[in-house]
Amino acid sequence: MPMTLEELARACNARIEGGDPMALIVSAGDISSAQQGQVTQLTNARYTHYLKESAATACFVAEGLMPPAFPATMALLVCTDPEMSFINAIGLLHPEPQYAATIAPQAVLATTVSLGENVYVGPFAVIGEASHIGDGSAILAGAYVGGRVKIGKHCRIHPYAVIYDGVVIGDHVTVHSGAVIGADGFGYKFRDHHHVKVPQVGNVVIGDHVEIGANTCIDRGALGSTTLGQGSKIDNLVQIGHNNKIGRHVIMCGQVGVSGSCKIDDYAILAGSAGIADHVTIGQGAVIMARAGVAGDVPAQAHYFGSPAKDKRVAYKEQIALSKLPELLKKVKWLEEQLQQLEKGQD
Amino acid sequence: MPMTLEELARACNARIEGGDPMALIVSAGDISSAQQGQVTQLTNARYTHYLKESAATACFVAEGLMPPAFPATMALLVCTDPEMSFINAIGLLHPEPQYAATIAPQAVLATTVSLGENVYVGPFAVIGEASHIGDGSAILAGAYVGGRVKIGKHCRIHPYAVIYDGVVIGDHVTVHSGAVIGADGFGYKFRDHHHVKVPQVGNVVIGDHVEIGANTCIDRGALGSTTLGQGSKIDNLVQIGHNNKIGRHVIMCGQVGVSGSCKIDDYAILAGSAGIADHVTIGQGAVIMARAGVAGDVPAQAHYFGSPAKDKRVAYKEQIALSKLPELLKKVKWLEEQLQQLEKGQD
Amino acid sequence: MPMTLEELARACNARIEGGDPMALIVSAGDISSAQQGQVTQLTNARYTHYLKESAATACFVAEGLMPPAFPATMALLVCTDPEMSFINAIGLLHPEPQYAATIAPQAVLATTVSLGENVYVGPFAVIGEASHIGDGSAILAGAYVGGRVKIGKHCRIHPYAVIYDGVVIGDHVTVHSGAVIGADGFGYKFRDHHHVKVPQVGNVVIGDHVEIGANTCIDRGALGSTTLGQGSKIDNLVQIGHNNKIGRHVIMCGQVGVSGSCKIDDYAILAGSAGIADHVTIGQGAVIMARAGVAGDVPAQAHYFGSPAKDKRVAYKEQIALSKLPELLKKVKWLEEQLQQLEKGQD
Repeated sequence: MPMTLEELARACNARIEGGDPMALIVSAGDISSAQQGQVTQLTNARYTHYLKESAATACFVAEGLMPPAFPATMALLVCTDPEMSFINAIGLLHPEPQYAATIAPQAVLATTVSLGENVYVGPFAVIGEASHIGDGSAILAGAYVGGRVKIGKHCRIHPYAVIYDGVVIGDHVTVHSGAVIGADGFGYKFRDHHHVKVPQVGNVVIGDHVEIGANTCIDRGALGSTTLGQGSKIDNLVQIGHNNKIGRHVIMCGQVGVSGSCKIDDYAILAGSAGIADHVTIGQGAVIMARAGVAGDVPAQAHYFGSPAKDKRVAYKEQIALSKLPELLKKVKWLEEQLQQLEKGQD
Repeated sequence: MPMTLEELARACNARIEGGDPMALIVSAGDISSAQQGQVTQLTNARYTHYLKESAATACFVAEGLMPPAFPATMALLVCTDPEMSFINAIGLLHPEPQYAATIAPQAVLATTVSLGENVYVGPFAVIGEASHIGDGSAILAGAYVGGRVKIGKHCRIHPYAVIYDGVVIGDHVTVHSGAVIGADGFGYKFRDHHHVKVPQVGNVVIGDHVEIGANTCIDRGALGSTTLGQGSKIDNLVQIGHNNKIGRHVIMCGQVGVSGSCKIDDYAILAGSAGIADHVTIGQGAVIMARAGVAGDVPAQAHYFGSPAKDKRVAYKEQIALSKLPELLKKVKWLEEQLQQLEKGQD
Repeated sequence: MPMTLEELARACNARIEGGDPMALIVSAGDISSAQQGQVTQLTNARYTHYLKESAATACFVAEGLMPPAFPATMALLVCTDPEMSFINAIGLLHPEPQYAATIAPQAVLATTVSLGENVYVGPFAVIGEASHIGDGSAILAGAYVGGRVKIGKHCRIHPYAVIYDGVVIGDHVTVHSGAVIGADGFGYKFRDHHHVKVPQVGNVVIGDHVEIGANTCIDRGALGSTTLGQGSKIDNLVQIGHNNKIGRHVIMCGQVGVSGSCKIDDYAILAGSAGIADHVTIGQGAVIMARAGVAGDVPAQAHYFGSPAKDKRVAYKEQIALSKLPELLKKVKWLEEQLQQLEKGQD
């Protein structure tokens, strides 16, 4: 919702330099395209050229990163951490939709469901037996919550997310549309020429402040729990197999795959489309680079690249060497010829 | 719906040679298995052998590509572009299901929704505040359309597709089941040992004649729009991150991933499972081959292969060289031995 | 449901050694964490150390694989195949939820739907014209079944799975949430600067005892059928394009992609994120290793690795050689210098 520059500055811990403190800020914009009525941010000296002709009404800048040139009408919002101030500003100018504390008449709740205070349940949502939804949580239209599920406080379950029976979700968790939490893990034993299913009777346990992207799948444990620690953020179309133990503040980007029974330690980062074989440990703070295929354990803080993945310093050397290989083949051929001539010379 | 050979030929701009113009054509079939009552096509001389014993009632062939042998009972439908004529024939013989202009009593539409003419809304579909559905569009059972969404004319939104708030969709757009358009982009800043979410307040804007596959995800822009130009075709399980600007007539095959803030120019083709790092530009008409991992800009018309992806001529040379590398290791060892012997000889 | 050790042993073909035959077994647990009241299994001598201090009430062991040390209170359940006996035990202790033979009042069934005996249809499920659901099948909440679909006996279609028109599914098939069976294949012809859609008018035919993971997509054939043979098991987020003919007892792990018109023979195994180009044949029992990219036919029983994929013995040799390549570059440089010195010596 719109606010004056002065109000915005105060709310975001910034000092105004120039501009009109009564100017109305309506929305947040990108530095390359911000218009009048918008606030933007400058976080990198590379982008100062955008400011020169920008129509933005205001711009967050860091103490000490003053832009060399900017329009006289633009206000600078000087602060210690412009990225965080800008995040605050976006949140204030574009508040998330709120859901009234109502249960849509078209929702189907089992009689044994227990609801906290200020819970919203949208039309066509289904909540199964003995499940609990915590205070302030919103189960949006068509979200499916199975039986014996526990969802904490201030969660948001988007349309057509599916939470299978027995899943436990902490507070302040967002599950985007189409995510499937708690489907069967993929486990079979081969007998008499066919695959016999190992019943998957565990569950999924998700910590506080986790965000789960659209169409991501997290399978239930075979016997125990697949776990996902607090503060971890999972992007879209990620596959997390059964029995994985995923730490806190882990990042998994789009289309990552973690097969099963892995241990992903706190603060690990799995970049886009990275894949992890089963029973692998990824150490604390390790970075698995985009499209890497990891078949063995990765030490803490290491950066791994390639498929099969190796420490990135090793992998980069190999990639550079590979680019020289076609030339090397020619050179070795030439060396061989030289050698043959030398041998002839010796005869 | 069934039609006579004569009717079909006229509708598809073809000349009948042989066969019975009154024969009934019931459906279209593949050249390798077409049966009596079916029409098929011959588009490649490699497949003429299938025709020899085919029971198909008719076959589209190109002027100048007459099959050497085919059953006397088979009619040839001679035309200039058999692929296009066959596409027309399939459409006529197998018309798409049409939806009556009705709103299912089990749908939930906000009071401020505006509907064009001849709109179908299926059971359990949900349409949010201030959204608009254009003439002739069908919102199938259970499709979810958020608030302030604009859907153009003659669109088809399949069951359980989810369109988040504020998304704009052009005319003649198809969204398959489970696709999620407009979920939050994946953006966090790391502060005080945890990931702080950057609010994602932009939207997605989709041009005319776009098709979006099942379970594909297209994230909303962080501040502005993620855009997808007219005529682009996106297969299943594709991930398109926030702020991407995707041109017109772009092809993305199954499981492609485009991280974020990329520019994919018109007519680019991204083959299956290709992945594009963030802030990359893919030039007009460039082809990113299957499973390629692109980390930097790709020039127009270039063909890129491998991961990390390179111009395919370079990448192929490296792959061929790699296959010779085990032998090269042996040869260098042998050269070393020869050289040592030569050195001994010189002493 | 809980049972005594004696009951469990009898039901699972095991002989009790030690422990109390009247002890109550409540659930199944993993060998590393099983507690009192739980039964576990020992299938590998590597894990015997877990048993030494285990609180498990009972443990399945193979004749001839007796653990060297285990608590006196623990009963051994000696049998010929502990994995299968344990699978039976899990099934008995954790029975799958059963669904009463009812049609939820919130379901929408076309008047021409035919239902077998003991069918469950959950709230907000939709079943289209002329479709048939076989005896004992459960169509869970919000599952969408199009028109002219045939679903066999004892199937389970999970919430928000989508079965498009005309799909045929055998008996004992499980389809997990968000799976989309029968969406359009991805086929276009390029004419006049745009992509013209080839109508996709075939269907999908799925055999008995197939399991399909969450958010997996199987496209309908362009003209004929995409087929999936009996006993095949498909994990989550798998993409199976149009016209593929997939045999019996095939395994596809998470995020596998099969483009189109492929033939995957019986008992083939496609490990996680493997990808198959179009028109490829994968021979019987072949194993495509994780993340392999297959561009050509693979013989029966072969193991393929890498991208582009090769027989794993060849691919491994290349990978090992690649790791020696940076050293090889140095050595060839040194050889060149030696040779130049020799040449000088000859002058």
